[in-house]
Amino acid sequence: MGLSEFALIERIRARAAGRDDVLLGIGDDAALLQPPAGQALAVSTDTLNLGVHFSADVVPADLGWKALAVNLSDLAAMAATPAWATLSLSLPTPDAAWLDGFLDGLLALATAQGVAVVGGDTTHGPLSISLTVIGFVPADQALRRDGAGVGDGVWISGTTGDAAAALALGDAAPAALRERLHRPTPRLALGRALRGIASACIDISDGLIADLGHLLVASGVGAELCIADLPISPALRALDDPRRLDWQLAGGDDYELCFSVPAAQEAALAARLGEFDVAPARIGRIVAGSGCRVLDAEGRPLPLARAGYDHFERR
Amino acid sequence: MGLSEFALIERIRARAAGRDDVLLGIGDDAALLQPPAGQALAVSTDTLNLGVHFSADVVPADLGWKALAVNLSDLAAMAATPAWATLSLSLPTPDAAWLDGFLDGLLALATAQGVAVVGGDTTHGPLSISLTVIGFVPADQALRRDGAGVGDGVWISGTTGDAAAALALGDAAPAALRERLHRPTPRLALGRALRGIASACIDISDGLIADLGHLLVASGVGAELCIADLPISPALRALDDPRRLDWQLAGGDDYELCFSVPAAQEAALAARLGEFDVAPARIGRIVAGSGCRVLDAEGRPLPLARAGYDHFERR
Repeated sequence: MGLSEFALIERIRARAAGRDDVLLGIGDDAALLQPPAGQALAVSTDTLNLGVHFSADVVPADLGWKALAVNLSDLAAMAATPAWATLSLSLPTPDAAWLDGFLDGLLALATAQGVAVVGGDTTHGPLSISLTVIGFVPADQALRRDGAGVGDGVWISGTTGDAAAALALGDAAPAALRERLHRPTPRLALGRALRGIASACIDISDGLIADLGHLLVASGVGAELCIADLPISPALRALDDPRRLDWQLAGGDDYELCFSVPAAQEAALAARLGEFDVAPARIGRIVAGSGCRVLDAEGRPLPLARAGYDHFERR
Repeated sequence: MGLSEFALIERIRARAAGRDDVLLGIGDDAALLQPPAGQALAVSTDTLNLGVHFSADVVPADLGWKALAVNLSDLAAMAATPAWATLSLSLPTPDAAWLDGFLDGLLALATAQGVAVVGGDTTHGPLSISLTVIGFVPADQALRRDGAGVGDGVWISGTTGDAAAALALGDAAPAALRERLHRPTPRLALGRALRGIASACIDISDGLIADLGHLLVASGVGAELCIADLPISPALRALDDPRRLDWQLAGGDDYELCFSVPAAQEAALAARLGEFDVAPARIGRIVAGSGCRVLDAEGRPLPLARAGYDHFERR
C-alpha cells in the first residue's frame, strides 16, 4: 500500500507516545520540549543506511529497534537518561506494512525506555534511517571518554563478539547470536549506575579494541587487556570457531559499554552490581603510554589482525 | 582525496565553532549541552537526498547552506532562536574537497546565526544530509499552526515563486532567482518579532497553498487570498512567464513565513517592521470553514492546478 508523505507522518504520529515534557509533538514546524532544570542535555545522532549498516533482508521491526538502540547506547555511555527522539526516514517507496513493522520495533524499545518520538522527517530516497536522541544528565556526572587514569581497571558489560559472529555466519548462526545482532540492548541502567564510579566510558559499536582505543586517545593513556579475562557468551563459546577471538576483540555492533574504574571505586561498583541485569567484567588495566596491548593467557602480547571498524575503509 | 570516517569527523570538528552552552561538542558518544532556564526547546529535523531535494550538479557550499537553512526556517516559524545542530552526512566517497566546500556553506550560515554544530554522524551511503537543530523559545510565545482565528489577516514574508522558477528554468534563470533557490534565507528575526503578534505561523517549504493549507487544517479555519496582493520579486515579474502565478502559489523551496495576525495586532506588527530586513505583506484573510480560495483581481475564485509538494507523489 502506497502512502503520501503526510499519510506516513500521520501514521507515525498516531502511534507515538507522549511525555509530560513534550509540549508539542509531531505535526508542527518543530517540536516544543521542556527540559528539566539543573541537568545538561545529552544529544546523539546515528544513521543506518541500507547496504552499509543493514542488508535488504532485515526484518523491519528489527531495524526499527536497532536504529533507536544504537542511539540509546550512546546516551548510556554518557550515563544519560533518554527522553526524546526525532526520526528521519528516507524510503524508496512509502509502504504501510513496512512502516508499521518498523514502528513496532522502534516503539517497543522507545516505550520500554520511556522515549517519546517528537518529530522528524519522512521523504523519498534510498532506505536510510537517521535518529537523534536527547537525554538528561547532571553535567558533572556525565561519563566522558577522557577521564581514564593510569592504574584504573578496564571493564566491559556483557560479552563481545556475538553480533560479529552472527553477521559472519548469517542464517547458520544460533538464534541467541542473531538476537544480539538484530536486537542489541542499550545498557542504560548500567550507564546511569556508573555515575560517580567510572572515570571514562564509551559504547562498543565498532569493536572493543577500536572503541577502547578512542577512550585511550582521549584520556592520553594506554591499556593492557588479558584475553583470559574476556567474557564470552555460551553461544559464542559453543561455536568453537577459530575466528572467535577476532570477533570478541574487533567485531562491531555489540553495543556494550567499555569503561574505566579507579581502584578506589571498585568496592562501590561491586555494591551496585545488583542494580543492572548485565554483569560487568574487569578485562585489563590502564597503563602509561598509548595504544592497547592484548596479552594471551601466558602474558605474551598478541598480534591483532585488525583494529576495528571504519564505514569507509571496509567498503 | 579519500578520508577515513574518523578523519572526516576530525575535519568537521576542527572547523565547528563553539558556544558557551556547549559543555562537550564533537568527539564523544554524545554532545553535552546546557539549556537556558525558563525556555522550551524547539527541535526540528530535515533531510536532503540526492535526486529528490537536489541534483548532482549542486555546488557543495550551496548544499551545506541549504541543509541548515531549511531546518532554521522551521525554527523561525516557531519564533525560536537557534543554538545547536547535529549533522548526519552519508557520502558515497569520503572526498575532502567536497566536504570542505559543503562546510563552507553550512558554517557560513551557522556562524551568521550563532549556531554551533555539536555532533552527528558520518557514514558511507548514497549522498544524504540530515540535520537536527535545537533552539530556544519561551513556551507561551512559540508560534504554532493551530492558533489562526476567523478575521485574522493572512501574511507572508518576502516573495514566493522565485525558487520554483529557478528550478524550472535551470541555468537560464536569472542569478537573483537561482540565489533564492540555492541560498534561502531563514526568516529568524522576523519569526522572533512575531512573538505575541501572530496567531499562527508556518514556513513555506512545499508551496504557499500547501503550507497555508496545513495551518488552516490545524486551526480549523479557511482562508481567502487575493492574487492582486501577492508580492512578487522584480526578477520573477521581469520573466513574464505564464507559469508565474503557479510558481507563486504552489512552488516549493521559498522558505518564507506564512502567518496570521489578528486585526488588533496589526498596529503592533506595523510598529516592528523596521526590525527585520524582509517586508511582510497581507495577502488575504482567515474565514470560517475550511480550505483556501484564491480570488483574482476581480474577486472571482481561481481554479488551482496543484495543491503543493509531496516528496512521494511527484516522483
